[in-house]
Amino acid sequence: MGTRLGELVERLGGNLVGDPNIELVGIAPLSDAGVSHITFLSNSKFRTEAQASQAAAMILSPADDALVAAVFKGARVVTPNPYVYFARASQWFAAQAEIAPPVGIHPSAVVDPSATIAPSASIGPHVTIEAEAVIGADAVIKAGSFIGRGAVIGAGCRFSANVTFHAFCQIGARGIIHSGAVIGGDGFGFANEGGRWVKIAQTGRVMIGEDVDIGSNTSIDRGALADTVIEDGVKLDNQIQIGHNCHIGAHTAMAGCVGVAGSAIIGKHCTFGGAAMVLGHLTIADNVHISSGSMVTRSMHEAGQYTGFYPLAKNAEWEKSAAIVRNLGSMREKIRSMEKTIAALSAKLDC
Amino acid sequence: MGTRLGELVERLGGNLVGDPNIELVGIAPLSDAGVSHITFLSNSKFRTEAQASQAAAMILSPADDALVAAVFKGARVVTPNPYVYFARASQWFAAQAEIAPPVGIHPSAVVDPSATIAPSASIGPHVTIEAEAVIGADAVIKAGSFIGRGAVIGAGCRFSANVTFHAFCQIGARGIIHSGAVIGGDGFGFANEGGRWVKIAQTGRVMIGEDVDIGSNTSIDRGALADTVIEDGVKLDNQIQIGHNCHIGAHTAMAGCVGVAGSAIIGKHCTFGGAAMVLGHLTIADNVHISSGSMVTRSMHEAGQYTGFYPLAKNAEWEKSAAIVRNLGSMREKIRSMEKTIAALSAKLDC
Amino acid sequence: MGTRLGELVERLGGNLVGDPNIELVGIAPLSDAGVSHITFLSNSKFRTEAQASQAAAMILSPADDALVAAVFKGARVVTPNPYVYFARASQWFAAQAEIAPPVGIHPSAVVDPSATIAPSASIGPHVTIEAEAVIGADAVIKAGSFIGRGAVIGAGCRFSANVTFHAFCQIGARGIIHSGAVIGGDGFGFANEGGRWVKIAQTGRVMIGEDVDIGSNTSIDRGALADTVIEDGVKLDNQIQIGHNCHIGAHTAMAGCVGVAGSAIIGKHCTFGGAAMVLGHLTIADNVHISSGSMVTRSMHEAGQYTGFYPLAKNAEWEKSAAIVRNLGSMREKIRSMEKTIAALSAKLDC
Repeated sequence: MGTRLGELVERLGGNLVGDPNIELVGIAPLSDAGVSHITFLSNSKFRTEAQASQAAAMILSPADDALVAAVFKGARVVTPNPYVYFARASQWFAAQAEIAPPVGIHPSAVVDPSATIAPSASIGPHVTIEAEAVIGADAVIKAGSFIGRGAVIGAGCRFSANVTFHAFCQIGARGIIHSGAVIGGDGFGFANEGGRWVKIAQTGRVMIGEDVDIGSNTSIDRGALADTVIEDGVKLDNQIQIGHNCHIGAHTAMAGCVGVAGSAIIGKHCTFGGAAMVLGHLTIADNVHISSGSMVTRSMHEAGQYTGFYPLAKNAEWEKSAAIVRNLGSMREKIRSMEKTIAALSAKLDC
Repeated sequence: MGTRLGELVERLGGNLVGDPNIELVGIAPLSDAGVSHITFLSNSKFRTEAQASQAAAMILSPADDALVAAVFKGARVVTPNPYVYFARASQWFAAQAEIAPPVGIHPSAVVDPSATIAPSASIGPHVTIEAEAVIGADAVIKAGSFIGRGAVIGAGCRFSANVTFHAFCQIGARGIIHSGAVIGGDGFGFANEGGRWVKIAQTGRVMIGEDVDIGSNTSIDRGALADTVIEDGVKLDNQIQIGHNCHIGAHTAMAGCVGVAGSAIIGKHCTFGGAAMVLGHLTIADNVHISSGSMVTRSMHEAGQYTGFYPLAKNAEWEKSAAIVRNLGSMREKIRSMEKTIAALSAKLDC
Repeated sequence: MGTRLGELVERLGGNLVGDPNIELVGIAPLSDAGVSHITFLSNSKFRTEAQASQAAAMILSPADDALVAAVFKGARVVTPNPYVYFARASQWFAAQAEIAPPVGIHPSAVVDPSATIAPSASIGPHVTIEAEAVIGADAVIKAGSFIGRGAVIGAGCRFSANVTFHAFCQIGARGIIHSGAVIGGDGFGFANEGGRWVKIAQTGRVMIGEDVDIGSNTSIDRGALADTVIEDGVKLDNQIQIGHNCHIGAHTAMAGCVGVAGSAIIGKHCTFGGAAMVLGHLTIADNVHISSGSMVTRSMHEAGQYTGFYPLAKNAEWEKSAAIVRNLGSMREKIRSMEKTIAALSAKLDC
């Protein structure tokens, strides 16, 4: 019931050296791979472990091939980017193990008659789909999810259980949205009138491109008047907050707990470490990389890696350094005063 | 099918200069407003853009009116606070476009016979309402939401899909709760017995005033013995955590990702920037404003703006500054030692 | 309808001094306890308040007993750890007040015929349980929750409304999961191919021990190939993010908004303050305590308390200190230069 190595290579490419008829039960890292696994070497510093592997087959780069092949007796799949090959192979094996959700609409789902559901889509139990929503071919909407009026879900999208996707928002093909995510909640917009907050109606949408992944319990707010935009290939981890009218460029990735305030414009191919925060109305260039736990408070026009968090220390040491940080102004004054005294002393001595 | 300008001004006030019979299709910012929109000038620095606008009408202040009117040919609505007027107008246009949710209880909803549902309320598909809960007039509870035993939902409240509102909690009139929000989960209370945690039952409630907005995926815990209290007019954005027994004063607003630990007492009219954090058992005065990403570790008795986050820098510069921050104690020692040496040198020179 | 003091002591232990036939309506802190309450003194600094209490009974330690008893006229329960006793008593009173959820499967629930549901379990409205899932004895799965294929829920677990527990994940006995929590969403794993992200299938599970509590809207991702592991007695507050392949040791507790990146290995009996963050692939020893708002960027091999956040200040003061922090390198240069000058001056003077 495994996968023939030759079939894998036919589908994913790469240069096979060895027996195509080997049967593989799955893929595993070097540390765990047994005699029925294919494994991968994506970092040359593990060449010695790779040589010693008992795996049936190994994905590796041309640069590592000769050295590993001198010892390793299994089949080899030589490919320029073994980590990407591993990713594709992991998808392959996961697809073999997957039990496809049933096509059609579960009888407990509540689907408005004016909604358009592709015949190949799978709509799970307790799903609600409002009027005029459109669900594309092969899309899977799992139990308890909510699709608001006029929303458009692209072909091949997969929504986990308990996703909320609000009215008039759209997502392109092959989008993946995890449980608890909320797409299209109201943005946080109020006018202050004598100390009280007057709500600004949030009538924009969330427009999401193709191949976008959105993690568990992540929130993306709809725009106030214009739309919030998430371009193709963006990957958002869990517990992320994207404010109204943000625009996130293609293939940007954000790790868990990131927050982006309203109207931030973020470039393409950026990365944000966990819990990084971005203030509103900023512009961030392409290829900017923000470290975990860092707060972006101004626009970033230059690509590069940026960081800003207080270094961790033993609590007693932190208390000392934090007390000094609070008084850096007086330390600077002291230094200035010393400079003057030293200058005066020098002058005296030079007389 | 638009709104007559005269009707808008009749409802919202302001001084109309121009033709009341203009038909408006909606409201738009200066940058986007076309010939069928009403727009607004809420910041005098955009007067030039305002003069050049093609909008059918403009909301603006008396201070800006003369200058704009010298060029702008549309109708004007003059009002002391154009931004608040814009907020109200945005609500008006949103209400025109809205399709009201159907009054009554959806057949798929599970409502305990002992619950009291106002005849004008709208209860969506797959909603669960437990025993003795009370749903006020005109309230809207959308699909998949859960209302626990004995909970009380005020008149005109609007719960988005997949809201969880636990037993015995209450919210006053016109509350808005967004999807994924959880009101009344257990507070995080444990006693430690030899390294193991013994749960403290959380039997208080969450008591929420009128006109409170709660964002997507925000959590407010019930009190341990007493209640957690959210006063009137509080506005909470998405992904916020409010611990048990907190008390948040009226008209305080918190941006996304804020966390407030248990038993914090927060004043009225405070604001918290995104990802600001408040430790437990603190007291924060009225009109305190905490910047984004700042950690409040002591009670704040004085109104004002407070900040505390590490400034962002290029990663290499941060590494340098962070290394020094870790060793500020030795830098201070060095300065002290230099001061002594300088004093000794001065004394010698003065001999 | 109250609880007889004697019955409470029979069940929870402790040394009763006073009338066992007193009827108690509940437990309350010193500040609130009335004549029908039992209260507790867990901190000796409140002895004076304890002496003055009107409570019917008091839980207190041997060390406090004599002094309190000299004035306090109610019954006393003397026990080495009054706070733990309070926790257990709070559970007792909560259990008296609780209305047990109905045993059996609500007719609106959708349960796959191949799932195994203990006859004593309670399955609420709109719950979905997929094929081959197992629900243990006395477990309670409240409204709208989702249990994926092959998941295993231990005896006595309690899932609040709208919990998502994905396929093949497991939780041991007496687990508590609050609303909006998502267990077993995909980890955040991608390979980068020329700027585009290729998804790595996430085929591991989340394996949770016994007596684990998981707060509202918390997310725990399934492992990539191996499993994510949460050991016995771990307590997680709300809005927490646990990345794929993390391993959290027994009896570790994390406050709200904590984030742990993938493959972090955390010891037993650790504590994490609110919004603490842990980078991926780190190892943290047992008994490490991380303060709120602190970022852990390297492995911690030594038990102790660690801290790292920028101290809060008035905004103007922060601006001053932050500007200096940005330029600490030049301050250090200045100090070095002064040291040289002073040395030169000293040398001159000594000639």
